[in-house]
Amino acid sequence: MTESLAPEAIGSIDPTEHSIIERLSTPQRTKADLRRIKCDPNYWYPVAWSRELKKGKTIGTRYAGHPIALVRPQEGSVFALEDRCAHRQVPLSKGRVEGEAVQCCYHGWAYGRSGRCIDVPYLGKGKLPNGVRTYPCREAEGLIFIFPGDPELADKTPFPKLGSVADPAYKTRRFGERVKCHYSFMHENLMDMNHQFMHSKQMGKMKPRYLGGENLPKMVEARYSFARTDGKQPWGETVVFGQRRDTSEKYAHRDVMTIRTEYPYQTLKISTDGQPPVMDLWIVYVPQDEEELTCRVFGLLSIRRPKLRGVLEAAWPLFVAFTNRIFAEDREIVELEQQAWNELGGDHNQEVFPVINMLRDLLARCGIQSPEVKS
Amino acid sequence: MTESLAPEAIGSIDPTEHSIIERLSTPQRTKADLRRIKCDPNYWYPVAWSRELKKGKTIGTRYAGHPIALVRPQEGSVFALEDRCAHRQVPLSKGRVEGEAVQCCYHGWAYGRSGRCIDVPYLGKGKLPNGVRTYPCREAEGLIFIFPGDPELADKTPFPKLGSVADPAYKTRRFGERVKCHYSFMHENLMDMNHQFMHSKQMGKMKPRYLGGENLPKMVEARYSFARTDGKQPWGETVVFGQRRDTSEKYAHRDVMTIRTEYPYQTLKISTDGQPPVMDLWIVYVPQDEEELTCRVFGLLSIRRPKLRGVLEAAWPLFVAFTNRIFAEDREIVELEQQAWNELGGDHNQEVFPVINMLRDLLARCGIQSPEVKS
Amino acid sequence: MTESLAPEAIGSIDPTEHSIIERLSTPQRTKADLRRIKCDPNYWYPVAWSRELKKGKTIGTRYAGHPIALVRPQEGSVFALEDRCAHRQVPLSKGRVEGEAVQCCYHGWAYGRSGRCIDVPYLGKGKLPNGVRTYPCREAEGLIFIFPGDPELADKTPFPKLGSVADPAYKTRRFGERVKCHYSFMHENLMDMNHQFMHSKQMGKMKPRYLGGENLPKMVEARYSFARTDGKQPWGETVVFGQRRDTSEKYAHRDVMTIRTEYPYQTLKISTDGQPPVMDLWIVYVPQDEEELTCRVFGLLSIRRPKLRGVLEAAWPLFVAFTNRIFAEDREIVELEQQAWNELGGDHNQEVFPVINMLRDLLARCGIQSPEVKS
Repeated sequence: MTESLAPEAIGSIDPTEHSIIERLSTPQRTKADLRRIKCDPNYWYPVAWSRELKKGKTIGTRYAGHPIALVRPQEGSVFALEDRCAHRQVPLSKGRVEGEAVQCCYHGWAYGRSGRCIDVPYLGKGKLPNGVRTYPCREAEGLIFIFPGDPELADKTPFPKLGSVADPAYKTRRFGERVKCHYSFMHENLMDMNHQFMHSKQMGKMKPRYLGGENLPKMVEARYSFARTDGKQPWGETVVFGQRRDTSEKYAHRDVMTIRTEYPYQTLKISTDGQPPVMDLWIVYVPQDEEELTCRVFGLLSIRRPKLRGVLEAAWPLFVAFTNRIFAEDREIVELEQQAWNELGGDHNQEVFPVINMLRDLLARCGIQSPEVKS
Repeated sequence: MTESLAPEAIGSIDPTEHSIIERLSTPQRTKADLRRIKCDPNYWYPVAWSRELKKGKTIGTRYAGHPIALVRPQEGSVFALEDRCAHRQVPLSKGRVEGEAVQCCYHGWAYGRSGRCIDVPYLGKGKLPNGVRTYPCREAEGLIFIFPGDPELADKTPFPKLGSVADPAYKTRRFGERVKCHYSFMHENLMDMNHQFMHSKQMGKMKPRYLGGENLPKMVEARYSFARTDGKQPWGETVVFGQRRDTSEKYAHRDVMTIRTEYPYQTLKISTDGQPPVMDLWIVYVPQDEEELTCRVFGLLSIRRPKLRGVLEAAWPLFVAFTNRIFAEDREIVELEQQAWNELGGDHNQEVFPVINMLRDLLARCGIQSPEVKS
Repeated sequence: MTESLAPEAIGSIDPTEHSIIERLSTPQRTKADLRRIKCDPNYWYPVAWSRELKKGKTIGTRYAGHPIALVRPQEGSVFALEDRCAHRQVPLSKGRVEGEAVQCCYHGWAYGRSGRCIDVPYLGKGKLPNGVRTYPCREAEGLIFIFPGDPELADKTPFPKLGSVADPAYKTRRFGERVKCHYSFMHENLMDMNHQFMHSKQMGKMKPRYLGGENLPKMVEARYSFARTDGKQPWGETVVFGQRRDTSEKYAHRDVMTIRTEYPYQTLKISTDGQPPVMDLWIVYVPQDEEELTCRVFGLLSIRRPKLRGVLEAAWPLFVAFTNRIFAEDREIVELEQQAWNELGGDHNQEVFPVINMLRDLLARCGIQSPEVKS
């Protein structure tokens, strides 16, 4: 998840930067095991891609162990219900959409947009049983979001800005998959650019330089520049910059990568000389199981179109293959981190990079420490 | 598991029926979770099909977590032993049948019909160790039954009447498979004919009318008639009735389906105008694991032979394919019910159909509430 | 694991032998469940075959749940580290070997032979974090051994004599696989030759005669002779003896098989008329998981070369196939023993053979009773 890096660099964090960071750093380092902290459900989370849900159909999805039926009527917007019939708890997403209602496949109990039970084929209308929970639901830029927390808070909670996906100057890759790890491993992976080391087969040797960061109550930011110390620029990276770059001094540390966790989302932008970003990634890691030890990634990776039209489209398959190889490496390593945590029964990390410790504090501070998501 | 349904019908339970049912209904609704109730082992349960066990062979099977070796000597009847050698607990069913004994495959310890150890090849006869448990065992109509409970009660316990399987006027399909759910889900599935809704792809739209029921200490019965509201009669159903029936008023509610749980067995009969049943099903769901959350189905589905000989045989493959599709739908839904129960950690059913509540009471009342089957 | 057995024999343990054994037998029969006893880690255990680890590479292996990275630098001997980076606990065996160090694949932390962290690419040398645990490590006869216990004891602990593998008069088969059982089942399987019964398809009927044994604080030995009562000598056995033997009296009880558990290793030798052994097996069962309910077998099976050169090489594939069939039978049965133990939640063995009870006492006495290996 870390394409587009540039030539010749330094490496070790210099003492001045350290002191800046230490001033920013929060004193109350949390003692709870970060991998036991649940995501705060009082945010908007994507739970499916729009293309997965056809008109007149329903599909099942999950948020932190809660099964959710998404329903797209022939007319009108998508809605989201608890994916368990009130009768016998079988998935409503196995059912059938009739008008603005979904009928359970088993005995035909029907539920409307509000979750209320509106028909039991073999019962009088007067004695209809209780319905099912409903979730606030919105669709944007090819993603279906729900608000899994307190529905009263949904309207007041800002809907995320989805990077540059809506900007016609960009072409966007939508990607994501299930990864068997706590979402916090994903945040740390992306923000610690020292893990470039791992991608050297894909990218050649890149030395990151940490330029500084920000530490706010709900946001942590890290900025880097890079220098290529060995190997050629990979094709996928050429796509991002729209030009070939070699290992010469000319390109070392010219591009700035800004990675930000703005709870609970994450972004990564690459800019050269203060221009609009050549790459703009928006990404979120949505807990799937109740323990939140598996997440589903929803990523919008936007690349600025070069002046010459058609070039980006032509190079796109190369770019997709390149990013897939990077993602596969990242995925393997975070799943190994999770496995080590499982085997050791807890967190034994010995983190030495201050910005990552700030990020860990942020995730602990903004998440839910109780054993159960109260949603 | 619900073929053979007839034309044009009503649907919702009318108030008069309700009051009949309420009078029948037992007041002491059990508070225990039905899915934690174990089957009463003091009944005869089939554990294998006769065809699975050849002469001079032994096979392993299970009842509620208890491994059972069935042995068919070259001469004489089948017998059933605990499927663990007294020596090192490996399965006797991996062994070899010699005369009326089975020899463990590992060190050759031999056991007779009574379970007594009758030979250890490397020990004097004077010091033979203890043997293994034996189970009362009977074979009937292609099924091998054991009595898993108190052996003293075996002879006093009535052996089940196996539907019409022995009657030459019927042809019988023997069927069954492992289903990953508590046996109670199977009973409820078959007795609640409102689940016709689920089979509408296979059967067309059928409206069930509940005609009434019975509620006795060890038996619950429900009677239905049906009307086809849409779609054509499927071929498999034509086989059952021996004739085509359309959606005309003529056939609506003519056939009566009687479903009965006579603990621990279940039957379903379809009769027209008081004639002998055109279909007669005997079925039982035998717990496999100790938790009893998986069962093995043994079903005898008997179809009355039409006057014209050979017709039923010719149509049989169609009938088999039709019933298999129905079974597959039933199997999927009961396994989804079990999964929901697993995830929720208990029963959240909101049952509104009185006869099903009577059935649930019956199963709870006749089953074993303690955490362990005392057998 | 029990080839090479010879003609015509007796069978049951005679009373005289019993009394010898009883005198030898220790009075303090342990009450702890043998399958919960952990291997004593203060011995040398093989954890990999030399051929698995190429120069300049690292591989991951296990001892009793402890992940171990074996590293073979381009120059110098193999070394063994805890297979978890001190930073984020991912496997060092996924990393890269540079000189005499291994670099973690994720952020490039590097560790030397001593386990000390010698480089973090983005940190000053002055502030290097703690390293990882190291294990004493030796390589011999194609096996890589570690000492998983207290490193202080490694040098004082005798390194095992590996049968006849180093003797050019023998040809050795190296074999082994993971077996899903506690190591104690393996020891008992090999030492109780009454289990010849199980191999009668491979070997014909062989009657073992128990000739006596030894019972020392850290060693138990059993000696047997055999007689063929039925069937022809298998080809694999012919390879061992270098000649055909029939069922005639001439060969009955001529060969002596000596099986020894010299904690924690096991050996099996077959000798005829006091000659050097025709077969010499050295074998050990190394716990893989923390519960020690899976083991990995490392076996060195040495066959004395016959005078006629080239014969053994020519017959080797036959011998390999024969021993593989024997191993497969042994493996199936010990895994069934383990499964029975799992289901029953403990040991229900009813052992009647005194030498096996002595062996069980030895394994309990020499193993670790506490729930955790203190290593």
